Amino acid sequence: MGRWEPDAAGRLRAAALELFVERGYEQTTVADVAARAGLTARTFFRHFSDKKEVLFRGSEGLQQAMVGALLAAPAEAPAMDAIAAALRAAATYLGDMRDFARRRREVIAAHAVLRERELSKLEDLSAALAAALRQRGTREPDARLAAEAGMLVFRLAFEQWVAPGEQRSLDGIAQQLLERLGDVAGGH
Amino acid sequence: MGRWEPDAAGRLRAAALELFVERGYEQTTVADVAARAGLTARTFFRHFSDKKEVLFRGSEGLQQAMVGALLAAPAEAPAMDAIAAALRAAATYLGDMRDFARRRREVIAAHAVLRERELSKLEDLSAALAAALRQRGTREPDARLAAEAGMLVFRLAFEQWVAPGEQRSLDGIAQQLLERLGDVAGGH
Repeated sequence: MGRWEPDAAGRLRAAALELFVERGYEQTTVADVAARAGLTARTFFRHFSDKKEVLFRGSEGLQQAMVGALLAAPAEAPAMDAIAAALRAAATYLGDMRDFARRRREVIAAHAVLRERELSKLEDLSAALAAALRQRGTREPDARLAAEAGMLVFRLAFEQWVAPGEQRSLDGIAQQLLERLGDVAGGH
Repeated sequence: MGRWEPDAAGRLRAAALELFVERGYEQTTVADVAARAGLTARTFFRHFSDKKEVLFRGSEGLQQAMVGALLAAPAEAPAMDAIAAALRAAATYLGDMRDFARRRREVIAAHAVLRERELSKLEDLSAALAAALRQRGTREPDARLAAEAGMLVFRLAFEQWVAPGEQRSLDGIAQQLLERLGDVAGGH
């Protein structure tokens, strides 16, 4: 590496989002992003494999955090308690990224190819949670149902969290929705 | 109309699916579909607005059936009972279309533009169920949670119903998953 580049990844990410919002995702090149961040394309590729990676890098970390928390839940905890632990881990992981999440969401909503990628990442996440539940001993169809119920809460909580003017924490919103879902679905 | 065309819409639909599976969706024209069905393109356009419509026509009828059943549920029934009624109506609506549903699913899975359309129809359906629940007096976030929980069951039940060799009815699968979801989510 050449000269010192404090938080190059963070600067590249911020520059990329600015440009995606200003010019559109398709119209922005890696060279544009690097220039906006005051860095070189070579430095960009030291941190990200491609342009899309700027938006989706976090999803592996999110999945690891959620699956880790789920597997760390007490063995005797019911499946939905393990899912609640995974949701708390997600909230911790994303907690200080509300502004990034808002702009990222705007960019993704505007591009079909990014929406498709996002949905496929969410499906991967759901499958990973179901697999982790089976590993803990939850049988099908319960593992899949609990994982999908967790993802439902995650999606709705996230949507609310990034809504304009929303002040509550992601964790607070998610835990409230999880409790409501228990009452609504369980009251059947 | 010219000469008598017994079940022209059904013949066009069957011909279209055959061709979509054989040649691919993009490579099939309306003229090809009409020719395979032994009809004219003019007849095709009497029944469908475009090629995509062959695959998605049913979704409005499905939504009407589900929303109708939900609104017809007893006023005092809990939200998830109204959702259960909507799922029963969906099973009745789709009941004798398992073969069509299997082939349709295959075509949709292979084309990003069709997957996107399918997901957007499912989102519309979820929003329509939530709106109908609010009309019955269910407040938010419960209406949205119950509607999404119903869609979760619908998706997983449908997936199982079209799986190779599956013999159980869509209604049987859906009602079993709904009950399991109640135990899993409510046991929290």
